[in-house]
Amino acid sequence: MEINKIRNDFPILQREMSGHPMIYLDNSATTLKPQPVIDAVVHYYTYLGANAHRGDYEMSAQVDAAFEGARDTAQKFINAKYREEVAFTSGSSEGLNEIALMLIDQVLKDGDGVLTDQAEHASSVLPWFKAKKDLDIEYIPLDEEGKITIDNFKKVLTPSIKVVCVAQISNVLGFEAPIKEMAKLCHENGTIIIVDGAQSAPHMKIDVQDLDVDFFVLSAHKLCGPTGIGIMYGKKKYFDALEPVFYGGESNARFYKDGTVTLKKSPLKFESGTQPIEGAIGMAAAMKYVSSIGFDDIHAHEVALKKHLLEALADCDHVKIYNANARSGIVTFNVYDHGKMIPAQDVASFLNTRGIAVRSGTHCAKLLPEVINAFGTVRASFYIYNTFEEVDALAAGLKEATLEKCINIFF
Amino acid sequence: MEINKIRNDFPILQREMSGHPMIYLDNSATTLKPQPVIDAVVHYYTYLGANAHRGDYEMSAQVDAAFEGARDTAQKFINAKYREEVAFTSGSSEGLNEIALMLIDQVLKDGDGVLTDQAEHASSVLPWFKAKKDLDIEYIPLDEEGKITIDNFKKVLTPSIKVVCVAQISNVLGFEAPIKEMAKLCHENGTIIIVDGAQSAPHMKIDVQDLDVDFFVLSAHKLCGPTGIGIMYGKKKYFDALEPVFYGGESNARFYKDGTVTLKKSPLKFESGTQPIEGAIGMAAAMKYVSSIGFDDIHAHEVALKKHLLEALADCDHVKIYNANARSGIVTFNVYDHGKMIPAQDVASFLNTRGIAVRSGTHCAKLLPEVINAFGTVRASFYIYNTFEEVDALAAGLKEATLEKCINIFF
Repeated sequence: MEINKIRNDFPILQREMSGHPMIYLDNSATTLKPQPVIDAVVHYYTYLGANAHRGDYEMSAQVDAAFEGARDTAQKFINAKYREEVAFTSGSSEGLNEIALMLIDQVLKDGDGVLTDQAEHASSVLPWFKAKKDLDIEYIPLDEEGKITIDNFKKVLTPSIKVVCVAQISNVLGFEAPIKEMAKLCHENGTIIIVDGAQSAPHMKIDVQDLDVDFFVLSAHKLCGPTGIGIMYGKKKYFDALEPVFYGGESNARFYKDGTVTLKKSPLKFESGTQPIEGAIGMAAAMKYVSSIGFDDIHAHEVALKKHLLEALADCDHVKIYNANARSGIVTFNVYDHGKMIPAQDVASFLNTRGIAVRSGTHCAKLLPEVINAFGTVRASFYIYNTFEEVDALAAGLKEATLEKCINIFF
Repeated sequence: MEINKIRNDFPILQREMSGHPMIYLDNSATTLKPQPVIDAVVHYYTYLGANAHRGDYEMSAQVDAAFEGARDTAQKFINAKYREEVAFTSGSSEGLNEIALMLIDQVLKDGDGVLTDQAEHASSVLPWFKAKKDLDIEYIPLDEEGKITIDNFKKVLTPSIKVVCVAQISNVLGFEAPIKEMAKLCHENGTIIIVDGAQSAPHMKIDVQDLDVDFFVLSAHKLCGPTGIGIMYGKKKYFDALEPVFYGGESNARFYKDGTVTLKKSPLKFESGTQPIEGAIGMAAAMKYVSSIGFDDIHAHEVALKKHLLEALADCDHVKIYNANARSGIVTFNVYDHGKMIPAQDVASFLNTRGIAVRSGTHCAKLLPEVINAFGTVRASFYIYNTFEEVDALAAGLKEATLEKCINIFF
């Protein structure tokens, strides 16, 4: 990977933060945008301009080609068998909510079991909590590091479990769940498996056919694309059968005063109203961009950056790392001073004074603190444009972090 | 209004269509984007970059200021009393669906009446059709022109009507409903009124306090802003009380394994997951842009363009206009040849050969054909950048349109 060439594609890397060159290590929250993505969005604004699926003029036909072309790109990105299996959403959270609401309403019964785990993001858990049916929500026991193992999964995948909803890579600790084996066990058990790919799709090749998952969601903004756009994958048999959560223009073919509605086929039935058109076009540009770098190289680079940080901090007993063994670009930690933990937010604020952007808090996974025994952590997450020098700067900051230096910072 | 100055703000107006300078008359579907909107979106990509509400570093604070500043702009744009009354959505369709689902689930009972009308867009009607409760859906009788009158409204606003859901300006015929009077009658009747502002907010000053409506939605892309972003206004008493449809990151403060969820206050509880950040920032730029032109001037310009077209077509008996009296920039018509209607799509395709973009079809208002006695119309809709010369070109096209010229067009 030619990091300098990649960095040149990201105009935002020219900016400073707190008077320093910006070191952006908050990629699990969102990623920066390369010029090809910016250009794709601006091209819509300056040349395409029309709504999709609705016009009888040349410019609208050009929009349709770009918009449906974006769907083709997304289909290829996750290797879906049919393009009808790929619906646009505003992002992973909407996708997870829509899938949950459709299954709760149309498939599940009172007493059915839903299996998730305590490392999950709120969007994978809360829609089930809020179900209008009396579902039995169970948790896959996490091992001592906080990850899902097949052995633990087998123990709780009982016949009453009708849905499993998990992230492929967890957003706090960065462990990869054994999705392919889990999907196999699910299907032997008559269980639907939903996978949150928000943290995996930017970092590894997704092949929904090989994984054999039933539903899969991702967000474009975590893989160098725009915010407000993502995809919801569903196996054809489910997308053919399910009715959408929302209704409106373009998702129906006919409706009558008596309440009869004839929906269009998937994926259009899931796409009511004007879609995020430049979002879809920008997402396609982002998918092409990260794919062109190659996921083997991306993964190797992220793991190398993490290894570099762990080595740099090897003799720092005051930095407690929670996920040293997770083979991803996420490093989650807390910093101690004379045996007392410095609040994560204060550490993040201190790093900001050196131009370093990291995340602090519970990272929307609010069941995890009791597993790792810490309410709030600092998370540094790497991506394609991060360098070993940036990791050195982070390590240097952490080495110097003391409670005194971390408090009373305002910006 | 300085039309040439305005036109210079829209780079897309430099493009050609079908070998002619493009004449864009499809503004009810979506509007073109001016440079300040493009610049605002690009500024996010090239300088702001971070997620909103989530970071402890300077760049994320800058995003928060821009994102919440966009909310302030939206609040001012519709003159909402409290900023807690303004939630971001992906657009009007999502807003109308969310409001309907919340009310159906949390407020309405079996047998309650919902009043809408046959000129409505699918997004205002279908969520009620698909209610999980047994609602009584009634229609406000439209007058012979297809518009809502207060007299007709009074006749059907019975005590059993708990919700009224109408567009302020209908998207096919462009008639303005007497919302302020309707809202007064609704509240005297104990009825909630929901207003679809998709077609009104781009063209007239919206003041939700003066109108005294309970809910109001709009889409940014119809007022020069990005797609995939809009706002959902709800009176504080409703937004305080209602639980959202979707759940996820940032909308909750805490949740526990036992299913307990503590939501954040409005509007954040309605905004699960990463929001369309550059969308919100771009929408704010668009709201400022159209406001700076001034709604009195916008309205006067649109009405003048319409009048110009009607005058140009005054002696054209073969062009049947359905909404001559609607005081908006929408002209809906069909073209006849020797007494036979030319299919609307063929007329649109013919106009495309002259670089003119208009819409044909039912315009997502699929209950209207039986009112106006035509399945499908051609719709020309004007906006701030349209000129009298463009209207002349449309009139010239319509004068020359024959069945023979309109068929067999491919592009």
